[in-house]
Amino acid sequence: MIVARIIDSIWATRKAEELNGFKFVLGEELTSEGNGKRRIVAVDIVGAGIGDRVIITTGSSGRKMLGDENIPVDAVVVGIVDDDCNFK
Amino acid sequence: MIVARIIDSIWATRKAEELNGFKFVLGEELTSEGNGKRRIVAVDIVGAGIGDRVIITTGSSGRKMLGDENIPVDAVVVGIVDDDCNFK
Amino acid sequence: MIVARIIDSIWATRKAEELNGFKFVLGEELTSEGNGKRRIVAVDIVGAGIGDRVIITTGSSGRKMLGDENIPVDAVVVGIVDDDCNFK
Amino acid sequence: MIVARIIDSIWATRKAEELNGFKFVLGEELTSEGNGKRRIVAVDIVGAGIGDRVIITTGSSGRKMLGDENIPVDAVVVGIVDDDCNFK
Amino acid sequence: MIVARIIDSIWATRKAEELNGFKFVLGEELTSEGNGKRRIVAVDIVGAGIGDRVIITTGSSGRKMLGDENIPVDAVVVGIVDDDCNFK
Repeated sequence: MIVARIIDSIWATRKAEELNGFKFVLGEELTSEGNGKRRIVAVDIVGAGIGDRVIITTGSSGRKMLGDENIPVDAVVVGIVDDDCNFK
Repeated sequence: MIVARIIDSIWATRKAEELNGFKFVLGEELTSEGNGKRRIVAVDIVGAGIGDRVIITTGSSGRKMLGDENIPVDAVVVGIVDDDCNFK
Repeated sequence: MIVARIIDSIWATRKAEELNGFKFVLGEELTSEGNGKRRIVAVDIVGAGIGDRVIITTGSSGRKMLGDENIPVDAVVVGIVDDDCNFK
Repeated sequence: MIVARIIDSIWATRKAEELNGFKFVLGEELTSEGNGKRRIVAVDIVGAGIGDRVIITTGSSGRKMLGDENIPVDAVVVGIVDDDCNFK
Repeated sequence: MIVARIIDSIWATRKAEELNGFKFVLGEELTSEGNGKRRIVAVDIVGAGIGDRVIITTGSSGRKMLGDENIPVDAVVVGIVDDDCNFK
């Protein structure tokens, strides 16, 4: 998994039918240097808000918990890092 | 998923039989700095055009929605970002 | 797999239910140059501590050993490198 | 998928038995800047030659079309880009 | 797959039970520029030695040939590049 900060929401009216009803967020990977800034679009299932630091699971591991094998999603926000968790 | 801009179409007359009938597009990943420019070839199923910002799902998650487990595709355009969605 | 050094723990009170009970650690990939510092969040099942050099397995390969196909985890600490193993 | 240029063949007499009979090629990813030069070894099933621009599918998506789930291959050349396809 | 040079062995006495009996090697990816030096830990099943150039298969594709779906391994040395194979 990666730790990312949610920086925005993504809206796509025209999309695959299987994606209806999901909330998409844009995350920016947190690195030791603060740069890099790899971005990832993820489905949020834990109610994360903009600014939150979150744990994102990628690949089939994330998709499996959405309850339908055929949903074309490869990244899911699975947790919100506690505010008082100050990692290096 | 990643957010990319469609920059061109890709044509391949000689290809695996399972790929017949699919439309291939070339996307360039959108990053915070505008550079990087990682490229990806994806199958388009939502009718994206050149210049569109799209959501691309990678890996087996994308393949699964094509309806046949044996199609050798690892990236699919699953949504078109709304024109008025201005993310950071 | 990658070799990483555990640099901290990650706490997330709000998370997907399937993740309850797992211990999350933050690892930093070890490279030949000491920089790069790609980070990864992994579930620890071997009792690694901060400072340990560990082997992390990613993707579905790691998830499979957790005993439930639907756990949204894509990285698992599967081994602790011996203290006297001095690789280049 | 990625677009790569085939730059050479790879020969490995000592290899896993499941790989016998496959042709391995070395591809170099094509990027907008001409550098980067990430390399990938792929199995060729469409008869690509050195110098050809090809589409390479990675991960389980590529393996599935080889007809045997247990073949340890994670990249397959699935198409040859048309000579007159001049993408940006 | 990638081409890497085996630079060392990795020893981990404390590890997941499913990994007992496997030999782990540390590979460094070969690139056109000689730098980059992305590292990968792989299980060796073809008897590669330090200094050998090898083909490494990643992801579930590599795991499948180990004979047990639940082995947490995501990279396997599947071939040794011939000594007289001089690719660019």
